[in-house]
Amino acid sequence: MSASKQILALNRFEGTDTSGFPPELAKRLAKRRATFGASSVLFYEQPIEMVRGEGVYLFDSNGNRYLDMYNNVPSVGHCHPHVASAIAAQVARLNINTRYLSRISESYAERLLSHVPAPLSNLVMTCTGSEANDLALRIASSVTGKHGFIVTRAAYHGNTEAVTAISPSSYKGAPHIPHVRLIPAPSAEGDVGGTFAANLATAIKELEATEYGFAAIIVDSIFSSDGIFADPPGFLQPALALTHQHGGLFIADEVQPGFGRTGGGLWGFGRHSLTPDIVTMGKPMGNGYPMGGVVVRPEHLTRFCETTGYFNTFGGSPVAAAAGNAVLDVIEDEELIANAATSGQVLKSGLEALKSRFPRIGGVRGAGLFIGLDFVTPDDNTQDQPFASHIINQLKTHHILIGAAGLYGHTLKIRPPLCFTTTHADQFLTTLEQILEQS
Amino acid sequence: MSASKQILALNRFEGTDTSGFPPELAKRLAKRRATFGASSVLFYEQPIEMVRGEGVYLFDSNGNRYLDMYNNVPSVGHCHPHVASAIAAQVARLNINTRYLSRISESYAERLLSHVPAPLSNLVMTCTGSEANDLALRIASSVTGKHGFIVTRAAYHGNTEAVTAISPSSYKGAPHIPHVRLIPAPSAEGDVGGTFAANLATAIKELEATEYGFAAIIVDSIFSSDGIFADPPGFLQPALALTHQHGGLFIADEVQPGFGRTGGGLWGFGRHSLTPDIVTMGKPMGNGYPMGGVVVRPEHLTRFCETTGYFNTFGGSPVAAAAGNAVLDVIEDEELIANAATSGQVLKSGLEALKSRFPRIGGVRGAGLFIGLDFVTPDDNTQDQPFASHIINQLKTHHILIGAAGLYGHTLKIRPPLCFTTTHADQFLTTLEQILEQS
Repeated sequence: MSASKQILALNRFEGTDTSGFPPELAKRLAKRRATFGASSVLFYEQPIEMVRGEGVYLFDSNGNRYLDMYNNVPSVGHCHPHVASAIAAQVARLNINTRYLSRISESYAERLLSHVPAPLSNLVMTCTGSEANDLALRIASSVTGKHGFIVTRAAYHGNTEAVTAISPSSYKGAPHIPHVRLIPAPSAEGDVGGTFAANLATAIKELEATEYGFAAIIVDSIFSSDGIFADPPGFLQPALALTHQHGGLFIADEVQPGFGRTGGGLWGFGRHSLTPDIVTMGKPMGNGYPMGGVVVRPEHLTRFCETTGYFNTFGGSPVAAAAGNAVLDVIEDEELIANAATSGQVLKSGLEALKSRFPRIGGVRGAGLFIGLDFVTPDDNTQDQPFASHIINQLKTHHILIGAAGLYGHTLKIRPPLCFTTTHADQFLTTLEQILEQS
Repeated sequence: MSASKQILALNRFEGTDTSGFPPELAKRLAKRRATFGASSVLFYEQPIEMVRGEGVYLFDSNGNRYLDMYNNVPSVGHCHPHVASAIAAQVARLNINTRYLSRISESYAERLLSHVPAPLSNLVMTCTGSEANDLALRIASSVTGKHGFIVTRAAYHGNTEAVTAISPSSYKGAPHIPHVRLIPAPSAEGDVGGTFAANLATAIKELEATEYGFAAIIVDSIFSSDGIFADPPGFLQPALALTHQHGGLFIADEVQPGFGRTGGGLWGFGRHSLTPDIVTMGKPMGNGYPMGGVVVRPEHLTRFCETTGYFNTFGGSPVAAAAGNAVLDVIEDEELIANAATSGQVLKSGLEALKSRFPRIGGVRGAGLFIGLDFVTPDDNTQDQPFASHIINQLKTHHILIGAAGLYGHTLKIRPPLCFTTTHADQFLTTLEQILEQS
């Protein structure tokens, strides 16, 4: 079991021991275990039952309102009325597959592609980020003729067989996966780009010495599961250059940073002023409606389609398109990218101020409304996962939802819905300060 | 290119040649190609733009109403108001992942599992049948320690990398896939079960002689893509016994036959009076809302979870559960299983009557509202794919939607929404008779 799994387990309920729980909750959990079985994992040592969502808030079955600092899927706000009504209208009108023409599916594709750098002009719609990454890997192999992939050490790219192989945060134990090489997450300081590229170079060399060769590096462009590494802007450029030098493709996984979260445009890779070879997307794309996509150069897609038929039954349906369109509407109408920048800056500055007062805070990193907050031991400044866990549970009692990330699980992963305002930031900062003072 | 690919291409638009098309359609197709690229495949030589769906009907942009004899995803009827309103209500109230408790997700899981044979008491919810099959393969490998799979020659099980490997109908060319063995589809007559099991035995032996071993056979329990083989009931039993004898698992892919279509219960495997080791589902589960599932023995899921973390972001969300619940409501309230049996029988009898008059009809097979209709040459009774294609296009001009299947593409795949009545059956039979008389 990896370090990251250990911490995650600490903040989760996945067993059967409900001793000390309210009887009603214990009964619910027993039923849950009886149906969802071993794959049932719930947040928190004592799980929460939710009954309603609205904007940045979730409401539990006991009438408590939680400030949601964690859920990045309902990215334009829980149950946003514009998205909900777009889905409601379309699902009552037409919901077919893309083998018939339907105006809304095609106009959504055009609209989305207008926000992606020019050479990437084709879109394949899927239902999930996992399906998108699964397809991206195969396109990369078709184009390069190689089958080796490089990812960061605590990366998560999805749940299919092919994508689980490149998602070390899902590994239990240390499986031998011959076609995958893991490299360290970017460093938080020093020559970030140079170090990252040097690690990549080693991994490329290793893969080139195998029968697999080097097909692609795939990076979540803000390194969400690794603990959030956003700075300095542009640090991924040497890695991109090196990748191309070795005939590989650079895949930007925008499933987490995409759709405005980083506050500097629609995509996380924009922060690095580069054009990836393939862009994948998912989670926030439909604000919870299951949709994902692969954006790719036409010649790359043509190459893939020469050897494999690809069709996705639900992908790109009129309802998915309606949801996707509505999400883009809200991002534009409510100026959520600018809000992510502004509110994110207030939040980050506030956290930096707390850092200067509380030595338990080891680092503050991020961009827009995607911030990583490290906790360290008071003695020797090393990663303090139990303390992060303590903070997460304390925040829960103060009705604030949050979770952890990173190889050592000592990093709070802060990524609220993008309608999060400076008022919410103040509430979070005040509460965190209070908890830190009492800890 | 396999035989099945050749026929599919005949009834599809996937190139760029729009000569002779109405200018507006040609413009739309050029735009479509510019966005969806090489992966854009449309039904029919001249595609149709749809604008509305209702019950068994789809309406195109020219105001034509089509009787839908083909689309099995909107299984309880296009845009069914009960399903649409359930989705609309839930998407406005709460849409989160399953790491929080939510009553509707858990009650849906319980309700669905109450319809599956007892030892299969755990459910993992996914977003697609592809994700479900991808997971099922891994569970089978965890349980058996083997990695070889057996499927039928024109099978389709989905679109991820792992599942494409076991979907020969997606192959272009004849790729060498070392861990997969293809066996012929069931025969239409003779000792169906014995022949199928004998072919399976050969394939098992072959896999056992490799490093992969025999993990599982996965069958669509009505063999949709192979051309629909339903009879005699029970013919899969010898294959199941043989599979267990060799330590393998039997996976029933209910993505196409499931949710009442075969008219004899909720599942296609029920027709064979057997209990599979794993059941997968998808397409009709949410009537178009992207959802799928894996139903499995608890001990098998536990085994898988020991080695791999599995979480599906959108899978089992309250909205998916609302859609799934509404689908089960409609199946019950409108007695769609009984209707599938009754209307299916009228349709099948009518087709058999046509067969006795028109030697071009080589075979009628199926159960409930899933019927395969073979066309053959008048001279030597061999598969006649061009004639099937002719019929498909003729039916289109009569505003009836249909498609083909099977290794030779000479089989009409008849699978209308389950609200299809005997009146619709009469309309189809009369139209087909007319076309056959004029052909």
